[in-house]
Amino acid sequence: LYNFPSKLLENAVNELAKLPGIGKKTALRLVLHLLKGDTINTDALGESIIRLRRDITYCKKCHNISDTEICLICSNLQRDHSIICVVEDVRDVMAIENTNQYKGVYHILGGIISPMDGIGPGNLNIVTLINKAAKGEVKEIIMALSATMEGDTTNFYIYKRLKACLSGRQEFNLTITTIARGIAIGDDLEYTDEITLGRSILNRTPYENTLVKY
Amino acid sequence: LYNFPSKLLENAVNELAKLPGIGKKTALRLVLHLLKGDTINTDALGESIIRLRRDITYCKKCHNISDTEICLICSNLQRDHSIICVVEDVRDVMAIENTNQYKGVYHILGGIISPMDGIGPGNLNIVTLINKAAKGEVKEIIMALSATMEGDTTNFYIYKRLKACLSGRQEFNLTITTIARGIAIGDDLEYTDEITLGRSILNRTPYENTLVKY
Repeated sequence: LYNFPSKLLENAVNELAKLPGIGKKTALRLVLHLLKGDTINTDALGESIIRLRRDITYCKKCHNISDTEICLICSNLQRDHSIICVVEDVRDVMAIENTNQYKGVYHILGGIISPMDGIGPGNLNIVTLINKAAKGEVKEIIMALSATMEGDTTNFYIYKRLKACLSGRQEFNLTITTIARGIAIGDDLEYTDEITLGRSILNRTPYENTLVKY
Repeated sequence: LYNFPSKLLENAVNELAKLPGIGKKTALRLVLHLLKGDTINTDALGESIIRLRRDITYCKKCHNISDTEICLICSNLQRDHSIICVVEDVRDVMAIENTNQYKGVYHILGGIISPMDGIGPGNLNIVTLINKAAKGEVKEIIMALSATMEGDTTNFYIYKRLKACLSGRQEFNLTITTIARGIAIGDDLEYTDEITLGRSILNRTPYENTLVKY
């Protein structure tokens, strides 16, 4: 379809067009924008991409992206290491950290069970989570995955694995919770779907718990 | 807003977010996609961007992007070098080449006169176009710019410059044309705006000229 006048141009467009959500037209627009800019900018972009993939390391404890062997959250003694919040990826950690409501630590699965995309439990950081629980030092595991079928499947799989691991060890006393499903703040009741509304009635909370504490 | 767990990650996100139409959320999504892929892919992407800007050259005749000193179109003796099509950038060349209807050569302005964006005639490749015309070897200059106010301004500016350059040189016999403005193929007459419709009546063409030639 395209007759590129230059191999360099064609190459850059093809590489950019491999990114999700970026087609050939967008890639060409981005490339022409880069060509109008300074060399220092394109060098910085190119090098940041190369270095990112080559030099990135993951925290040995929680599998989060980290510049250090143990990430800042896992090495922070102010945080409660007996509470583990299980999330899909680094974006969820950033989102939860932004709420300033959580003082425990995290465990990053690196994905979600999704047979359609060929992702099974073996592709995720589940074994290390079970091992953490098996040490008996964890009081609560909070499942904070998306409210989708894949999220529910992953929740159930991990729940089963944890139960199997802890069976016959009454002394462990581990609670498994999920983040609350319900009506989002600001949402209208009449436009809420019935599943969310039904869950929000079943999982109603004492009014005192909803009051903001200062 | 964002608490990045790693400088490498933050750096790559910030660099990608400098591209037009890519915000921080999209940049983070792209970066996480790259992290899941192979090192060979990110190396190829990063290097193609760096090499593009560092090694790209422009044709000395038409200013198009080219891997050679004179581009493939300008060095093609099969093409009619007495007809020059003036376009904004390489995308327009690719679009016109795809029609297979043009056998002349091009002249790339590298932009369009747009005072709002700080682009004046001095920022464009206009002087070299005038010089080509002044040699007296050009029979026709086809203005193929966008049908916008900026395009019309640029057309008029170049027309004036060419007229001034050629005044008193009757032997030159240069025609300046613009690509036809009219109703796009497949468009409904009743939904066409009145300016386009008016122009299409003024610039009506003999019916025989519209028949496809085999």
